[in-house]
Amino acid sequence: MDDVFAHIDAHAEDYISLLQRFCHQPSIAAQGVGMQEMAQMVKAELASLGANPELVDTRGGFPVVYGTLAGASNRTLSFYNHYDVQPADPLDEWDSDPWAAEIRDGRIWARGVADNKGNTVARIAAIRACQAVRGELPLNVKFIVEGEEEIGSPHLYNFAEDHPEMCAADACIWEFGGRDIDGRPQIHLGLKGICYVELRAKGARHDWHSSVATSVPNPAWRLVWALSTLKDQNERVLIPGFYDNVEPPTDAELAVLERIPDTERERLDNLGIDGFLQGLSGVELAQRDYFQPTCTISGFLSGYTGQGSKTVLPGTAMAKLDMRLVANQNPHEIYRLLRQHLDEQGFADIETELLGPGFPARTRFDAPIAKVVAETYTELYGQEPVIYPTSAGSGPWYQICSQFGIDACTAGVGHGRSQAHAPNENIYIDDFILGIKHIVAIMDRFAAVQAE
Amino acid sequence: MDDVFAHIDAHAEDYISLLQRFCHQPSIAAQGVGMQEMAQMVKAELASLGANPELVDTRGGFPVVYGTLAGASNRTLSFYNHYDVQPADPLDEWDSDPWAAEIRDGRIWARGVADNKGNTVARIAAIRACQAVRGELPLNVKFIVEGEEEIGSPHLYNFAEDHPEMCAADACIWEFGGRDIDGRPQIHLGLKGICYVELRAKGARHDWHSSVATSVPNPAWRLVWALSTLKDQNERVLIPGFYDNVEPPTDAELAVLERIPDTERERLDNLGIDGFLQGLSGVELAQRDYFQPTCTISGFLSGYTGQGSKTVLPGTAMAKLDMRLVANQNPHEIYRLLRQHLDEQGFADIETELLGPGFPARTRFDAPIAKVVAETYTELYGQEPVIYPTSAGSGPWYQICSQFGIDACTAGVGHGRSQAHAPNENIYIDDFILGIKHIVAIMDRFAAVQAE
Repeated sequence: MDDVFAHIDAHAEDYISLLQRFCHQPSIAAQGVGMQEMAQMVKAELASLGANPELVDTRGGFPVVYGTLAGASNRTLSFYNHYDVQPADPLDEWDSDPWAAEIRDGRIWARGVADNKGNTVARIAAIRACQAVRGELPLNVKFIVEGEEEIGSPHLYNFAEDHPEMCAADACIWEFGGRDIDGRPQIHLGLKGICYVELRAKGARHDWHSSVATSVPNPAWRLVWALSTLKDQNERVLIPGFYDNVEPPTDAELAVLERIPDTERERLDNLGIDGFLQGLSGVELAQRDYFQPTCTISGFLSGYTGQGSKTVLPGTAMAKLDMRLVANQNPHEIYRLLRQHLDEQGFADIETELLGPGFPARTRFDAPIAKVVAETYTELYGQEPVIYPTSAGSGPWYQICSQFGIDACTAGVGHGRSQAHAPNENIYIDDFILGIKHIVAIMDRFAAVQAE
Repeated sequence: MDDVFAHIDAHAEDYISLLQRFCHQPSIAAQGVGMQEMAQMVKAELASLGANPELVDTRGGFPVVYGTLAGASNRTLSFYNHYDVQPADPLDEWDSDPWAAEIRDGRIWARGVADNKGNTVARIAAIRACQAVRGELPLNVKFIVEGEEEIGSPHLYNFAEDHPEMCAADACIWEFGGRDIDGRPQIHLGLKGICYVELRAKGARHDWHSSVATSVPNPAWRLVWALSTLKDQNERVLIPGFYDNVEPPTDAELAVLERIPDTERERLDNLGIDGFLQGLSGVELAQRDYFQPTCTISGFLSGYTGQGSKTVLPGTAMAKLDMRLVANQNPHEIYRLLRQHLDEQGFADIETELLGPGFPARTRFDAPIAKVVAETYTELYGQEPVIYPTSAGSGPWYQICSQFGIDACTAGVGHGRSQAHAPNENIYIDDFILGIKHIVAIMDRFAAVQAE
């Protein structure tokens, strides 16, 4: 592998340039900005690898960029990535233009550089390096690069239903991964599900002079009252049936939690807060993080929100609710329970819309791909990775992998302060180059695994 | 008076032009936009009347434009007006540019044309017409034109404390007034007080990936929970002591309420709602409107509020609370009770800031100025005015008048669909011209009232 690694080091500038070019192109699925341009850019790169890429229709969503490459063994490894990114706002909290991909202090700073363009380019670069040095790949490779991950992959079910053969693989390397806040590599063996809902209340036909508030309904109050019935101050979700399918951790899972390093102080410092909710710490905190669902107000807008005072009665109010689900919660069922609860509590007037449901998913601890990723992490990074039973985040692991019995595992170029979804998103250049090598090592090692 | 009225008709175009010029100049106190320019414009007009205007410092706020004119009698009438306006947003709901002062369908459409530039210009025009035709005014006149009414007149107490002699008058014509939704003139003999508070909650140092919501405090939830302790779904304010100084209406006041015309259907149609809160109607509705305080969420902002989904845990949450007070509530006491309630309910972490407190105020039914305004309304408008014990709105009536024992009364050029504080604010040109004449009639009649 040393010859491939030397080639990667010699061509580092090319890979960095390609990543910057990817980051210069905004691709915000939530706002429909730059999506076609970005899909074409990914397609062109896959074409240059000889992957015969195509834009696969998803019946109403942004297309999946799909490509395949034949290799020396009959084993197949798929890479799941996404070409969309989060919106960049609040813009005034960025130290440099989120689309400039500025290099500063050994890092690249850009919206999407960690989530997920750094990993997409690392995987392309790994293939290119293998091809250049050896003329062939050790196994068959598939690229599944979707365009709606940041809005909850609403059309990826269609893709998987229409093209199960495109999903078929012996294992999958998931889109994200990398080091924790202390630089230790991490492996995640699952994802949380998500049920993301927009709630809307309406009052008068527009914002009105607030003097009429004596007798005119206020949609902001309606929404505050409705939300206050969803979760109590002890963080207990009050929607009847919400916890019914939540599975407590097994003894094996609890044992994994015990081995997760204590990064609480660093996390608190990074977040800028004094303590975790309800003073949680240790294994209790880890159980909450990895085995408990959430119910989060992600946004709330009503009335006048500028400087100073404006005495209005709002005409509308809107809230976004982000519920992260754990095995075996079903996002469609959770949405139904939410709607039923609102109706029963007298909030039938509040409109709800389900945006991007996602199922939770889990890969078993002893899956071959988990072993391969762990061993190669240890060899390349000089440290054993920390294994997490699930990521705290969400994604379409179920659609692309679990529903077909495909094991998946994370491996990537991020780090504990990559600021995914936040201002000043970044990755270290050294991690990016190491991540390219890691993909080469994973391909070599997984090609050698005996079929079960 | 006919000669003065004929002069007003002959010069209508001049007055309309002046009003348009006033409306072209944005003057948004909440945002500090155009305030100096507007104050100078008012000062220049008062100077052209010979009122020797000055910009009176208010110790930290926008200045009061103050001017005086001597007249034939020893009686003094003051005009309280304001040169600031509400912000114009939401801009996309305006049918024409809010600063263009477009004339369409017999109306002038502009931010501030009803509240309060139409009335300011009408009073200037009335003085100018009297001077032109008669060479003198029937009584002494004072202009008190402040710049912070729309943000709760936070520095007008300073003005009144520093310059009680400037406030001194035998009576005051209040800034607003006009016709109701059916074209009948209205008189208001008081104002509600206001306690406008901004609430702020903080969590992580900025918006974060929502996956951390398992264990990181969410300021949007904090604010929703805190707000939900302030008012129940039956519209009862839950802050202990909030209602302690609320006075029930007297029999005389209830009798006035009985004579208020039924405009419920029109109001509902105008608002675009099916019914009033809790199905209120008739005298019950009027009692709520004129004798009950409110607690209104005027604005709420947290996290991502754009299109689609963004999976964030907000770093901050902000709400604006607009509490309209009735006699004899004290805004400073109400703010203290709110703060105490939040602390007692476990929300000491939520910051509060009092923006522009205002005391409620009332003029007695038999005050001479009330009689003068009612008689002149009847004569000029051909209809007896409807008398309201108080406006549902707020303002510094207490600071400028009540605390000095000065009676005040409303008279103005607005109408029931003037859309003050809302998009498409407007007045009828005919009302504007009639309103100029009304001010002339009020001055003549009040000059003749015997001192009590």
